[in-house]
Amino acid sequence: MFAKRMTNIQESFIREILKVTQQPDMISFAGGLPNPKFFPVEAISIASDKVLQEHGYEALQYSTTDGYRPLREYIAQRYADRYDLTVSADEILITNGSQQGLDLLGKLFLNPADKLLLEQPSYLGAIQAFSFYEPQFIAIPLLEDGLNIEVLTQAVKQHQPKLSYIIPNFQNPTGATYSLEKRQQIADLLIQHGGLLIEDNPYGELIFEGEPLSPLRTYLGEQGIMLGTFSKIIAPSFRLGWVCANRKIIAKLTIAKQAADLHTNYLAQRIIYQYLQDNNLDAHLAVIKEAYQHQRDVMLGMIKQHFPAEVSYIKPTGGMFIWAALPSGYSAQAMLQQAIQENVVFVPGHPFFVPDGGENCMRLSFSNTSPADVETGIQRLGAVMTRFLQDDVVYF
Amino acid sequence: MFAKRMTNIQESFIREILKVTQQPDMISFAGGLPNPKFFPVEAISIASDKVLQEHGYEALQYSTTDGYRPLREYIAQRYADRYDLTVSADEILITNGSQQGLDLLGKLFLNPADKLLLEQPSYLGAIQAFSFYEPQFIAIPLLEDGLNIEVLTQAVKQHQPKLSYIIPNFQNPTGATYSLEKRQQIADLLIQHGGLLIEDNPYGELIFEGEPLSPLRTYLGEQGIMLGTFSKIIAPSFRLGWVCANRKIIAKLTIAKQAADLHTNYLAQRIIYQYLQDNNLDAHLAVIKEAYQHQRDVMLGMIKQHFPAEVSYIKPTGGMFIWAALPSGYSAQAMLQQAIQENVVFVPGHPFFVPDGGENCMRLSFSNTSPADVETGIQRLGAVMTRFLQDDVVYF
Repeated sequence: MFAKRMTNIQESFIREILKVTQQPDMISFAGGLPNPKFFPVEAISIASDKVLQEHGYEALQYSTTDGYRPLREYIAQRYADRYDLTVSADEILITNGSQQGLDLLGKLFLNPADKLLLEQPSYLGAIQAFSFYEPQFIAIPLLEDGLNIEVLTQAVKQHQPKLSYIIPNFQNPTGATYSLEKRQQIADLLIQHGGLLIEDNPYGELIFEGEPLSPLRTYLGEQGIMLGTFSKIIAPSFRLGWVCANRKIIAKLTIAKQAADLHTNYLAQRIIYQYLQDNNLDAHLAVIKEAYQHQRDVMLGMIKQHFPAEVSYIKPTGGMFIWAALPSGYSAQAMLQQAIQENVVFVPGHPFFVPDGGENCMRLSFSNTSPADVETGIQRLGAVMTRFLQDDVVYF
Repeated sequence: MFAKRMTNIQESFIREILKVTQQPDMISFAGGLPNPKFFPVEAISIASDKVLQEHGYEALQYSTTDGYRPLREYIAQRYADRYDLTVSADEILITNGSQQGLDLLGKLFLNPADKLLLEQPSYLGAIQAFSFYEPQFIAIPLLEDGLNIEVLTQAVKQHQPKLSYIIPNFQNPTGATYSLEKRQQIADLLIQHGGLLIEDNPYGELIFEGEPLSPLRTYLGEQGIMLGTFSKIIAPSFRLGWVCANRKIIAKLTIAKQAADLHTNYLAQRIIYQYLQDNNLDAHLAVIKEAYQHQRDVMLGMIKQHFPAEVSYIKPTGGMFIWAALPSGYSAQAMLQQAIQENVVFVPGHPFFVPDGGENCMRLSFSNTSPADVETGIQRLGAVMTRFLQDDVVYF
């Protein structure tokens, strides 16, 4: 009954885990959720009132597919201010979260069996969105400072991928951030061999240390496509994200979006814009970053104290995630069952790998857990791990 | 560079016309827009405040893909109250307007060259959404009381379409409504031959005369898929619609939606639900219906008075549209250019036809034009028409 493209599609494993997290006393490092404590509820309420009182009849009507022009100009200006990157509002399409950007880009570019290059591991939602268009995934190992350049170079030469997809800042799931050198190397390679690069950047504003590094688009020009979102910096429920790409791509994407849902919730666009006009986003971000950084520090400290020495992990300099690896041969998925018994959960690494891998890995989110719960949760997890690694069972 | 599916995709012609409607003194019968005068701005503002004050932190967080459960229960209850039709909230998926339902259904069911049966003429946005999945369209002539049953019967036997798509109430673009007899005949035919029927119902609540007729789903059971929306009864900017289908389909659609945009704006779902709790929707609808009915009556009266006798049209019993036809051989598209000179616009019929047809037809929307402007606009259009038909040029 269903289309062929549905054959290999499965429900997100993470959403399954999230059901367990509802249990009382469960400490969850599973969800990639921002901490609601920092949602600007009062300021959003004021912005909402203002928009409805001053522009209510217009704000409730149908609107244009490309999105509210002043919001697109704000986004363009932020690229200029933050990254010294000049883009036009015409190069920005407002989407239902950056997730919709992934879907629309897949729809626009991917024929079945087209080559799509991505990080190993990569964002689960991207793998899922692209899978509907049945590409051939070319997965390149991700190191702490970005893609493995040797493997990438060979793959680009061999496969000439039409599209590449990366998350250069505080990657999901690994927390890894690309060095400036790797950004330039990757851009050089793609300029030489052609192909478009999608750089997804949901976490870039959540930087704890140092200065933000240039997007690859800086070097790539029209070969670069950027995705962004307000989900992690204001609130996710609005589903407000964007695609920034050259005008030709945006024109086609706009047609695809028109067919997909006519336009993004316009009242939400007006409210977020009003919020951005009346509030200091950087001051708001400073509060979030300080809290997340503290939670990261607590988690790293507890990991050092309670995880067995043979468990490795990446120290992120921003974002929401720490990536840890059991010694090779131990299954994080198997360990998860024991962790649930002890009221602590994480996401096993396996679903982030295409076609497979990462069985010994796990993603730990620190963004939505209080420092006290981080302490308790990592203690529990460390105890589970110690016991688990003492077993003689090797799983694969 | 682009995927093969993009080859035959074009921007909506209607959106192009809408640009002209911005000109001063232009009277537009082109857009399918609800009248913003009736948007419940104050009540939405109160609902928004209440949700943010009472549930702000939750309402701004990520949410489930299927949608806010109480809103889904409300929709199920309305099917029971209005059509005596029992559906479960589990059979309802909240989407970004019913337009997203069309896209997700295309994604779920359509392989390239699969047979998709639809009305001739049909909703432009549906043609556009489905076109991305490259089906073979089987277009069945739509009469004033529904599809031509003889042609339909033959087409179903010959093509065994996997999917059929109709708008049984106050259809877009024709305003036609299916008789109860045709509903039963079509359902019988599909029960006999198999295949799913999507019945889109954006205008069903805008009924001016008589009692609402049963959805085809009443007879079709699990072969029936219903689309609905709050766009025409509350406000379109929220992009809140739904798909109602059997659980197996909803489960797969939910996975497709998760990949497409994770979930629909959750704050919007909470606000609309709060609005529905605190206000009387039927009283609100009574006001809209009275106004639209009056505008329809004025338009029909002016058409009778000012259109040449050889121009035919359908009298709708609800909704937003009147469909008119010049004598065969005259091009409404060509006439539109002259109408624009006289500051009145409509949508020519051609784009609603797959693969082509309707060159002499036009859609006139009465929902978003004041009675005074309806009078002036139809006078202008009648004069243009009279002059146009006196020319000897026959266009096709």
